[in-house]
Amino acid sequence: MNTEIFQELLRAKKYKAVRSILEVMNAVDIASLLAELEDKELVLAFRLIPKDKAADVFAEMSGQMQAQLVAVFTERELRDILDDLYMDDTVDLLEDMPANLVTRILENVSREKRDQINILLNYPEDSAGSIMTTEYVDLRRDSTVAQAMSHIKRTGIHKETIYTCYVLEARRLVGIVSAKDLMTTDDDVPIEELMETEIISVSTHTDQEEVARLFSKYDLLAVPVLDAEERMVGIVTVDDAIDVVVDEATEDISIMAAISPTEAPYFENSVITTWKSRIPWLMLLMVSATFTGVIINNFESALAACIALTGFIPMLMDTAGNSGSQASVTLIRAMSLGEVEFKDIFRVIWKECRVAALCAVSLACVNFVKIWLVDRMLLHNTDITILVDFVVCVSLAVTILLAKVVGCSLPMLAKKCGFDPAVMASPFITTIVDALSLLVYFAFAKSLLGIG
Amino acid sequence: MNTEIFQELLRAKKYKAVRSILEVMNAVDIASLLAELEDKELVLAFRLIPKDKAADVFAEMSGQMQAQLVAVFTERELRDILDDLYMDDTVDLLEDMPANLVTRILENVSREKRDQINILLNYPEDSAGSIMTTEYVDLRRDSTVAQAMSHIKRTGIHKETIYTCYVLEARRLVGIVSAKDLMTTDDDVPIEELMETEIISVSTHTDQEEVARLFSKYDLLAVPVLDAEERMVGIVTVDDAIDVVVDEATEDISIMAAISPTEAPYFENSVITTWKSRIPWLMLLMVSATFTGVIINNFESALAACIALTGFIPMLMDTAGNSGSQASVTLIRAMSLGEVEFKDIFRVIWKECRVAALCAVSLACVNFVKIWLVDRMLLHNTDITILVDFVVCVSLAVTILLAKVVGCSLPMLAKKCGFDPAVMASPFITTIVDALSLLVYFAFAKSLLGIG
Repeated sequence: MNTEIFQELLRAKKYKAVRSILEVMNAVDIASLLAELEDKELVLAFRLIPKDKAADVFAEMSGQMQAQLVAVFTERELRDILDDLYMDDTVDLLEDMPANLVTRILENVSREKRDQINILLNYPEDSAGSIMTTEYVDLRRDSTVAQAMSHIKRTGIHKETIYTCYVLEARRLVGIVSAKDLMTTDDDVPIEELMETEIISVSTHTDQEEVARLFSKYDLLAVPVLDAEERMVGIVTVDDAIDVVVDEATEDISIMAAISPTEAPYFENSVITTWKSRIPWLMLLMVSATFTGVIINNFESALAACIALTGFIPMLMDTAGNSGSQASVTLIRAMSLGEVEFKDIFRVIWKECRVAALCAVSLACVNFVKIWLVDRMLLHNTDITILVDFVVCVSLAVTILLAKVVGCSLPMLAKKCGFDPAVMASPFITTIVDALSLLVYFAFAKSLLGIG
Repeated sequence: MNTEIFQELLRAKKYKAVRSILEVMNAVDIASLLAELEDKELVLAFRLIPKDKAADVFAEMSGQMQAQLVAVFTERELRDILDDLYMDDTVDLLEDMPANLVTRILENVSREKRDQINILLNYPEDSAGSIMTTEYVDLRRDSTVAQAMSHIKRTGIHKETIYTCYVLEARRLVGIVSAKDLMTTDDDVPIEELMETEIISVSTHTDQEEVARLFSKYDLLAVPVLDAEERMVGIVTVDDAIDVVVDEATEDISIMAAISPTEAPYFENSVITTWKSRIPWLMLLMVSATFTGVIINNFESALAACIALTGFIPMLMDTAGNSGSQASVTLIRAMSLGEVEFKDIFRVIWKECRVAALCAVSLACVNFVKIWLVDRMLLHNTDITILVDFVVCVSLAVTILLAKVVGCSLPMLAKKCGFDPAVMASPFITTIVDALSLLVYFAFAKSLLGIG
């Protein structure tokens, strides 16, 4: 739908046309269309959305748009929307809302729902409890398929998913039945015979990343959430799991590039927010580069004695940095996918050492020839002797080995100590490896060239 | 299940116990259990898996394990497995198999299935066609809900998902009905009244990343795939979409760290494979550092005139590199999530310029004070005059501005030219920004300090 045409219709008060457009569009697209409108038009357009779709559209809107609408809603409108919202969406709504609107919302939900909301709001951020919904289909083990189907027909319409049904006994989960099983089994078969009793479940405090991993490992559509007493309290659905996978990857990528993660899309963050997410790391890394400066200054005399050495500093530092960040980023991702754990650290280091040895030998050989042919012969840098060339290449090889070992072990140690391993990616590793590579370089220069 | 206990039971020929264990475990866990066994045990254990689960377990195994089993299967066993495999899993199986086993497999599927396999194998890698399955539930618009339900009961058991049903007319998709709608609607309602006609679909050639984005945007469980003539040829299911999201994020992260992506988990890649995935980029970046070397050599005399200048080179290069990679990584991710497109390039540059200005001013000011207090006063580096300090900080500020602009625009230009924007992440940007920062530094040093 073209926003301009839609706006024109709205301004020309062609409400019938607007309503028929909104009738055929899906909730997600309506929400993005509404995001383009001005404040007053937004309220007007929202009121023209068919009743059965309004809550879905509302759930898809940004927190800012939701707040705008809640502020102008009549009590009646607010109550209608809140009645139709799923529990998890209601909780999301409250998390982003200014305090006065939170009060308004809580006044307009039933007491039972308010109690549930309060419980959900208290689960730790990023836990299964904080993303679950409390509406699911529960069945009794002594029902038949036909009874279960008629139970679903009566109650299912208000549940976020009806495709996995949960067999409860005294609030404890005893089995799982899929809608597929119900639909392809004869009416008189008891649920007890049909249900799966090997159940994959999570606890309310399970980290959402772990929950998402279960979805991708076991191809689930929903996973039951149990409380500390093993009672079933809700489900996480696959659409939320996909969002978690996407968000966690974005968060890891940001942190790896030395950016504090923000949740909003690129253009929705203000310049100040973006600056705030980037400056602390830049500042920290800049100040920590003082060490590399100190190392260079300590070897001033060596550099003065053989000016050619300075020219190779960037190449050495960059190659070391790249080698280190290859190892660290590989390990960070492998840990986040659950492929590698801390107990594997020696296996990892051993593997990285062998990879590093291959990289070191190949890069050092190519570099030796390159320096001789290009830098000395082609660019006529007569400062470069065979010995200087040798010093550069040996330093390169040793540095690569160190970089890979530091690069693979730091993220694993970080995780062991309870930090986010993604912090130990390129920028951080680069700073450490820079200092290491200079120390190695100057040590070889001093001993082999006899200077400094 | 403990692998050792399982192995012991197997060796003690307690097949009844083994079978009853396999009966209660789910397919994914059985596959990982089997991965720990030796070759002969694997074949034996696989034959003990209950018939109705064997194909599911087979689909979850690694290509290597599958090849091992296919090589020893009787014709009968092979045919049984192939009959029960979903189309998309059969195609995955063939893609990783040695040629002689491919022939064996193709000889043991029905002619009809073989034709379908050939079509699926011909879709471009990473397209919707290559990950779709051809088994889905099709309904007629003139059926009633009751007729549809009985159709599903008869045929649904062999379909990968029955939760989204497709209403076809002359092989063209005219509507979609969810199983939820069927289960919560009265028996005599015609499908035509129930079906959704605003359909989200993809073509066989749509990129899998784009397909996965639709799943997360519209919270879908399956998406229909249409061919060039708009006929329905298959569906992509949500479990495959999650795998795509995970794989694409891993691929992006690898490329951003200058690693050619590999599909296998960390430990499954041999040392040589890992080396091969890392060395080309290290080599390229190392050789391209020749430029920075040349720049430094050209300013040898300036560096000799003011030795203190050399010590700030790493800080300048690192800060510029970090600033640039923050911008590039942010934009690469935003493009991959569909938040930013090429047409936004000027808006992006304008935003990055403002962020860069804030970063440049704050970093330069802090650095100015830090150099004076720490490097000059604390570390007694008397080479550092106020003018040198000024040159360093002005260079820093200008470099940050350049780095952010280069960092945000290169990935966008790369995408416009048909390259993967992830290539333009940290390592690549760092190499370019290194050269830029040195040029800026020496230009300021020459003009303000009057040296070189």
